[in-house]
Amino acid sequence: MPLILALDDPAKPLQEIVGRLCGVVDGFKVGVPLVVALGGRAVCRLRRLCPGALWIADMKLADIASTMILTASQLVDCVDAIIAHSIVGVKGALGELKEYLDRHNVKLILVVAMSHPGAVEVYNKLLEENIAVVRRVNAWGVVAPATMPEVVARVRRELPGKTILSPGVGVQGAKPGAALCAGADYEIVGRLIVEAEDPYREALKVLQMQREAAEKCAAKR
Amino acid sequence: MPLILALDDPAKPLQEIVGRLCGVVDGFKVGVPLVVALGGRAVCRLRRLCPGALWIADMKLADIASTMILTASQLVDCVDAIIAHSIVGVKGALGELKEYLDRHNVKLILVVAMSHPGAVEVYNKLLEENIAVVRRVNAWGVVAPATMPEVVARVRRELPGKTILSPGVGVQGAKPGAALCAGADYEIVGRLIVEAEDPYREALKVLQMQREAAEKCAAKR
Repeated sequence: MPLILALDDPAKPLQEIVGRLCGVVDGFKVGVPLVVALGGRAVCRLRRLCPGALWIADMKLADIASTMILTASQLVDCVDAIIAHSIVGVKGALGELKEYLDRHNVKLILVVAMSHPGAVEVYNKLLEENIAVVRRVNAWGVVAPATMPEVVARVRRELPGKTILSPGVGVQGAKPGAALCAGADYEIVGRLIVEAEDPYREALKVLQMQREAAEKCAAKR
Repeated sequence: MPLILALDDPAKPLQEIVGRLCGVVDGFKVGVPLVVALGGRAVCRLRRLCPGALWIADMKLADIASTMILTASQLVDCVDAIIAHSIVGVKGALGELKEYLDRHNVKLILVVAMSHPGAVEVYNKLLEENIAVVRRVNAWGVVAPATMPEVVARVRRELPGKTILSPGVGVQGAKPGAALCAGADYEIVGRLIVEAEDPYREALKVLQMQREAAEKCAAKR
């Protein structure tokens, strides 16, 4: 099942977790706190423990082109994809970033909507514009919140060819499998697994829940 | 004059630049690329070269609360202020971040509009909502683009008590002093100074241009 593990907290036993969950999850998403604490090269070191997985730098880039490219340049050698915010738009921002990432064979993933309650009042109001940005820069994937399955379903309808990654599963409240049923390709789980007493067992449990949910919604169709 | 130097490129002789410009500029704004390349502790080491200046971590935070707080926790010991994006909203995001920063005596600065051309189509459409977020979380300062003086003037009118910092001066096209005339408290200059053959002389030139522009617009009032 399509599960990506989010690694954000530098205080966790990251090497142990990556080693143990390699082959169990499809990929690893490393977040800003981890990169800030350990430096960008730490991502390369972690990757060596599971080189075949999908590695995503969740930098949540949201800046002018030159700054985003300078950040990306520290990471393109060790990840398959980088996450940026669609809300910064194309000209002088994501357009140039996409060209840069293409030259380095790194995929661009754009956040189109966020998973927390406050997003509704600001960020998510721009969903239509954000989807248009994804089309214009031809991003490989999009981030849409598992906590809002109706948003995932809309993104699936409007961006049929794009890979959808859905965070918000677990601690934030979405049940494993709910976003997959709404059309997501991957669910992203962080604290639920990372903070479990036994992350390996917890990941297997999440995978089982994803499988059951997927069977149920396939049966409904 | 109120000038903040933006440091983004880790390949530049940062220690030399900070040492030389300490006492010349009011503050230093360190960006994501630098922090990613060198790790968060590098900001503390740089600060020691000019402890009395205003040090700002321009992390452009735009995530859920727990992730932003985890990033901030790597930096609160060595900066006076941290920059986040107002577009992520209050609940589950900036509300909690603000409480965390308050407990650590670190100021919150929120981007309300961006300086590049693509911002107009997406980000800057939410200016009204973003200004409301600044009020609700009671941020200390806001970032508004020197390249769009009409936006700076509007933010000045609507947020009279807030400190306005304006990037986009120099390489991005705004002239030194233009944002100050529109109501900004600080202008942020990066590449124009950092990439100059003699950053010290270039900074003095910018300060002189700010002074002249400020005198001209004071005379007009």
